[in-house]
Amino acid sequence: MSEPTFGFVSAETLPLFTDLYELRMMQAYANRDHNPRATFSLFVRDLPPNRGYMVAAGLEQAIHYVESLSFEDRALEYLAEQGFDDAFLERLAAFEFTGEIRGVPEGTPVFANEPLLEVTAPILQAQLLETALINQIGYQSLIATKASRMRDVIDRDGDGQRLIDFGSRRAHGTDAGMKAARAAYIGGFDGTSNVAAGEAFGIPVSGTMAHSWVQSFERERDAFEAFVAEYGDESVLLIDTYETVGGARIAREVADAADVDLRGVRLDSGDLPALSKAVDEVVPGVDQFISSGIDEYAIRAFFDRGGVGAGFGPGTALVTSADAPKVEGVYKLVAVERDGEMQPTMKLSAGKVTYPGSKTVRRTESDGQYAGDIVGLRDESLPGSEQLVPVIEDGKRVSELPDLDRIRDTATAKRRMLPVEHRRIDDPDPYPVQIGEKLRQETDRLRRTLE
Amino acid sequence: MSEPTFGFVSAETLPLFTDLYELRMMQAYANRDHNPRATFSLFVRDLPPNRGYMVAAGLEQAIHYVESLSFEDRALEYLAEQGFDDAFLERLAAFEFTGEIRGVPEGTPVFANEPLLEVTAPILQAQLLETALINQIGYQSLIATKASRMRDVIDRDGDGQRLIDFGSRRAHGTDAGMKAARAAYIGGFDGTSNVAAGEAFGIPVSGTMAHSWVQSFERERDAFEAFVAEYGDESVLLIDTYETVGGARIAREVADAADVDLRGVRLDSGDLPALSKAVDEVVPGVDQFISSGIDEYAIRAFFDRGGVGAGFGPGTALVTSADAPKVEGVYKLVAVERDGEMQPTMKLSAGKVTYPGSKTVRRTESDGQYAGDIVGLRDESLPGSEQLVPVIEDGKRVSELPDLDRIRDTATAKRRMLPVEHRRIDDPDPYPVQIGEKLRQETDRLRRTLE
Repeated sequence: MSEPTFGFVSAETLPLFTDLYELRMMQAYANRDHNPRATFSLFVRDLPPNRGYMVAAGLEQAIHYVESLSFEDRALEYLAEQGFDDAFLERLAAFEFTGEIRGVPEGTPVFANEPLLEVTAPILQAQLLETALINQIGYQSLIATKASRMRDVIDRDGDGQRLIDFGSRRAHGTDAGMKAARAAYIGGFDGTSNVAAGEAFGIPVSGTMAHSWVQSFERERDAFEAFVAEYGDESVLLIDTYETVGGARIAREVADAADVDLRGVRLDSGDLPALSKAVDEVVPGVDQFISSGIDEYAIRAFFDRGGVGAGFGPGTALVTSADAPKVEGVYKLVAVERDGEMQPTMKLSAGKVTYPGSKTVRRTESDGQYAGDIVGLRDESLPGSEQLVPVIEDGKRVSELPDLDRIRDTATAKRRMLPVEHRRIDDPDPYPVQIGEKLRQETDRLRRTLE
Repeated sequence: MSEPTFGFVSAETLPLFTDLYELRMMQAYANRDHNPRATFSLFVRDLPPNRGYMVAAGLEQAIHYVESLSFEDRALEYLAEQGFDDAFLERLAAFEFTGEIRGVPEGTPVFANEPLLEVTAPILQAQLLETALINQIGYQSLIATKASRMRDVIDRDGDGQRLIDFGSRRAHGTDAGMKAARAAYIGGFDGTSNVAAGEAFGIPVSGTMAHSWVQSFERERDAFEAFVAEYGDESVLLIDTYETVGGARIAREVADAADVDLRGVRLDSGDLPALSKAVDEVVPGVDQFISSGIDEYAIRAFFDRGGVGAGFGPGTALVTSADAPKVEGVYKLVAVERDGEMQPTMKLSAGKVTYPGSKTVRRTESDGQYAGDIVGLRDESLPGSEQLVPVIEDGKRVSELPDLDRIRDTATAKRRMLPVEHRRIDDPDPYPVQIGEKLRQETDRLRRTLE
């Protein structure tokens, strides 16, 4: 409580990043000697508005979280203060994940009701993970999706424009700033302005200048001259501090006088498509970098109106996924051991379907495009390629996690395999996800026994 | 790059949580020998939709950030790889904030164009802070505001219902999960389900049970019996796993048989107001705790429809501020030293007003209610109480930061001083914020010189 808190969670407090009820249930599982093996599925019930797909992301952080879980003194002392009993705290002190995790590889398109992750372990262990796993996977998937939509608009209507994440300042906390940079890169961005994210994830970092640079000099011209003297051909000049087209003229004069080829100019306000055309006449051939209010809709409108730009810097709308800021990831018990066998289970809460049992997700292709998915019981024999890959078995990693550039390449390739009608940024056609015959029968059977 | 990243920023990488352009400008300020004293104002240009006020929050974390800034080897090595030069890196190695910070105390209502924070320091120092300060203040203020709106609806239409933050799993990353708990507490919540936030901030933690507890037993009755055997009078039973009113009946039977007074039941799905009334007939007098889709609008609707509840557990809508997920905090250069004097400065970017100069924010009262604010130049003589309090001078803390409970009390008292028409959760009347005469004249004068 006394140390400065930047809001981040340290290794020491990581196992406490969970809801109290998880720990209360765990204590009761332990004390009632009720610790059956259980399978939990992490999935979203509905895609966010205007999303025809989501891009799975965050598996690496989720796995690191599970592998790093360890209850040290600081956490145990706090839990003792909260009234947890000694026997349970001793059990926590020895906590180690010994179960199985299967996950959809990062960069893969996913759809409603498809598990992104399945955890099978003694319920006491699996229960603890709920809060942090949803947090890790949900946010990064939300942002990878948002980024993928922008890249897709450029693939279709643009000319390979660069996309740089400018959002750290407006992200919901520092962790979101970091993860948005990573997830945006997965979704097809080229870099980030966030230096810490560059360092942490090996993402290219990129940056120009702020209005404060220009204002700190008596004249815009002085500011440009000083910057060009420092950075030469690397200079990207922000030209909208006072008046954009005039700023472009001064930029050209300064560059000419210094015999420098500007790397670019940046526009950050006003009617961006119109201004970019006017600026292009003043500094033809100089790259224009467009920021302020950028998202997939703004990029499409920019192209529609004939805007001239070599790159975009989305910020707030990217990192908050502003048009759809929430994705309701859930982590539901779908199977539990009874009489020595894993039995599918489901709840009936009004208006919410949870398909029972551990799952398989199969994806079929036709002419190099995805043709549809089938979600079935794990042992159900179905066509198509399995999307859920074993990552941890008996508590040990059984597959390498790919590096970020490979994830990004995968995401690009897989996005392009998704038929274009499911990629529309508004009103996309729903992608066909069927329920396997065995899963459907099991769901009906269970519903009858429960009603 | 190689260590597990939970997305958080460590003390070692904290100074890199900034945009690359800040560091590029800093290097150029250093190398061009252009390091004038500068004042930056942090404010929002517009309140988010349906907000008549915001609640300032995050100052404590912002100040801790500034006080902790130190460039160590890991950060310096990364910056060397990015091409920063040795002289500049040496300067960073010696970096220490020596300037002044004034801030609006946490828990205070604030309005558009009012500085929440002002930083005055050599521009090289002040520039670095932009990204992290906006991030720290923006998100917590957004969530404290959202929480305050829920508490305000209960103050008006309810009966002192408890509010517990249930949102960690759906927050944008772990840091947001932590800070949402803190900010919600400031805004008037009673606790959080996030155990790490409880530990970090001393917030009361609270939790019941999940559907998985119920499903892990063969029958709902078995699940309730086991929980009641463990927790006795402390038990809060989740009754909607199969059918809510039936669940309430079983809860009553189990409690009666065990001779236990249930602490409560929880409802998490369906038509909550209607179900709560039906449940109240089955377990009269037992506290009902209501979750699923809760925000200020849902709480108002719950009361309007006669729902019976002793507490609410807002989650996703709280921590993402779902109806208004972004607040565009900016950090603008408003004054810069020229010829030995601080000179007001402003930019003219289309459609965006930035008032020049270091400011005073004065708040006037009438009959114990806030009557209006005046934003003026710092040396302008104006009526009302100053909202910007000196926190750091010459790099040293000059005032204690209040503890969280005091901040929360302050927030409650100040919220109630805001006339009710500015607190409406939709379409609130705008609170009157005037611009002081001297500031207005200075703005006009500068605009003329720049146009």
